[in-house]
Amino acid sequence: MRPIYNYITAAAGFSASGIHCGIRKNSNKLDLALISASCGCAAAAVYTTNVVKAAPIAVTVKNLENGRARAILVNSGIANACAPGGEEAARRSCSALAEALGIQADEIIINSTGVIGVPLPIEKLEAAMPVLAAGLSKDGGDAAAEAIMTTDTYPKQALARAEIGGKTVTVGGIAKGSGMIHPNMATMLAFITTDCDISPELLREALAESAADPFNRVSVDGDPSTNDMTAILASGLAGNPPIDRKDEDWLAFFEALNTVNMTLARMIAGDGEGATKLVSCRVRGAKSVSDAKKLSMGVISSSLVKAAMFGADANWGRVICAMGYSGVLFSPELVDIYFCSEAGEIAVCKDGAGLDFDEVKAKEILLRKEVSIICDLKDGDQEAEALGCDLTYEYVRINGDYRS
Amino acid sequence: MRPIYNYITAAAGFSASGIHCGIRKNSNKLDLALISASCGCAAAAVYTTNVVKAAPIAVTVKNLENGRARAILVNSGIANACAPGGEEAARRSCSALAEALGIQADEIIINSTGVIGVPLPIEKLEAAMPVLAAGLSKDGGDAAAEAIMTTDTYPKQALARAEIGGKTVTVGGIAKGSGMIHPNMATMLAFITTDCDISPELLREALAESAADPFNRVSVDGDPSTNDMTAILASGLAGNPPIDRKDEDWLAFFEALNTVNMTLARMIAGDGEGATKLVSCRVRGAKSVSDAKKLSMGVISSSLVKAAMFGADANWGRVICAMGYSGVLFSPELVDIYFCSEAGEIAVCKDGAGLDFDEVKAKEILLRKEVSIICDLKDGDQEAEALGCDLTYEYVRINGDYRS
Repeated sequence: MRPIYNYITAAAGFSASGIHCGIRKNSNKLDLALISASCGCAAAAVYTTNVVKAAPIAVTVKNLENGRARAILVNSGIANACAPGGEEAARRSCSALAEALGIQADEIIINSTGVIGVPLPIEKLEAAMPVLAAGLSKDGGDAAAEAIMTTDTYPKQALARAEIGGKTVTVGGIAKGSGMIHPNMATMLAFITTDCDISPELLREALAESAADPFNRVSVDGDPSTNDMTAILASGLAGNPPIDRKDEDWLAFFEALNTVNMTLARMIAGDGEGATKLVSCRVRGAKSVSDAKKLSMGVISSSLVKAAMFGADANWGRVICAMGYSGVLFSPELVDIYFCSEAGEIAVCKDGAGLDFDEVKAKEILLRKEVSIICDLKDGDQEAEALGCDLTYEYVRINGDYRS
Repeated sequence: MRPIYNYITAAAGFSASGIHCGIRKNSNKLDLALISASCGCAAAAVYTTNVVKAAPIAVTVKNLENGRARAILVNSGIANACAPGGEEAARRSCSALAEALGIQADEIIINSTGVIGVPLPIEKLEAAMPVLAAGLSKDGGDAAAEAIMTTDTYPKQALARAEIGGKTVTVGGIAKGSGMIHPNMATMLAFITTDCDISPELLREALAESAADPFNRVSVDGDPSTNDMTAILASGLAGNPPIDRKDEDWLAFFEALNTVNMTLARMIAGDGEGATKLVSCRVRGAKSVSDAKKLSMGVISSSLVKAAMFGADANWGRVICAMGYSGVLFSPELVDIYFCSEAGEIAVCKDGAGLDFDEVKAKEILLRKEVSIICDLKDGDQEAEALGCDLTYEYVRINGDYRS
């Protein structure tokens, strides 16, 4: 028995559905997800900065120009990137869904995830829309979360609530996990619903600020894939006083949204392909947040650091080496490095030089499922954290033949 | 029986030696190398751009200020980086060697490779210098090449000759291979000797230009390790007319030097840790060499591309995705991609969209030991090539516990 979450339909006004429409060979794997609102919603999205963008990105950017939408449509298995007729296929999908739902085609946020370069089987998608729409329900959230998965080992869902003007506002989200262990190559899809009453402009600001959060590094920047997107629909049905400026109500909503995003980011990092553990790197004592971000991303993206974490090897030299080529100037002779987990904390490098530390204790710390690398530059008071995972045999196996 | 090369002692005036001095636990593994000249030499070096530099780098930079040197001393097993007293240990090593050789301590180029953060056992090194010096011979080149190895599976040596002013000039080199599969994290050490008569300035220019060669991407840029160095000694004993300007004699010497460097680079790439094949990426049709370099390095550094190459999976979508986050603006809709090897060439993407190619043929091409990815931007006439290797189970095994 799988636990029941349905977080994406927890907010008032949302239903969801997930089916197998035939994109995937395995007929047990759901491959088409729909999230639908009972009314017009404020809507916003942040997108990949990859120069190569998947076709549905262009369609969604256009559809969200007015800051309004009513539905989110996502398929897994095929990315609809670098394939002939991609935009046409995305638009036809929207039209078919719009007809099935009785809404306008430009009220739909659309995306895809999977193999690049293969055309979408548009006839299968068109044929599936009535079935997909008919399946919408409050209980469909888990099926939708499953249908967007590729190599994820479990569906990722998160929920947070806030009290705003005496009303309970709900924020729920689902994410398609790290297709890749390298956080800066992860295909990160996240879809969020809320019943908060908020203007499209303030909704967009909240999403953008959460994406820029220095402690939310997996989900947002680095070097993203062709399809990355985080999108949000706000139905306004919570009955809170409408949020139209950045006051404390906005902040309360932002906190809830950020909690959802960070929970999803941690799940994505810990469930990287083949990963056995979540590895985070916190850089503190930096002159700027930007420096701390680059350094922490540099450490967490290093194949050598990742492989050492897999082997629970306290090889901090690779950490400082990765910092050294992250593109940030710092003083190596000031750097302190620690490894931490539930099993404790150990200092391994002080003032840029190795300490004679207890290897047994270090091993014990690094054998845990969540491990943290702390780098203190002792040269300022800014900090940031990046999330990643270890590099394993299983990663190589999965990615040695992803397409078959 | 190992084949005999001794390329580093092939040029007139050079002898070499390699011994086990006790840095490595395994007493069969040579860990200390010496290359010595019978006379003062013109000398030059290029160094890592990592912010974190190993202690011997600073000592060598200082010793080479006058463009002259007589010997190269290198240990493997310990990097002498981020360890207390590192510069002192490097200087003491130079002094002990100088005494054994009867030269000045500042005539020595010194470097180390191995684990970061561990102090050099300086007493062992000092005790070893007389033995190391006594072992010098023309036949010691292979031992020196072996002594600088860490996880290399074979010693890397290269040789080239040029006719300059009716005299034969010899250039020989050894390299310590890619400690890491990720070319932009490779610890790349290369040492070159020549009997060419050339001024220190012109020697430095030749080395720097070779390092910047657009078809020599493994050895030089990207994000280097703490210890990277390529150093050269020129004895002048070939008897050629002295080279003191960039004329055709200089060019002839440059060509020979570049051949040695490129041969070593290819060996390093193909012998990346755990690698089963050499993978190169040539980007052509670019607006600038700089763009072509960044794009080819982006492709060759992608864990996903590397894993696909290991699996002989023609997943070109990962190639264009990696291009997309390489930091270069280009037009995806113009890009053509091909896979090539001795087994043939196959087009897999044209004008940014997937072709319906023969998967069996593609597999056959990608199963070879040397595979090339060609990306044509069709937007200019500049090109560059980067060399790397595949990402394998063995890489993860080696790097999961490198220190033990």
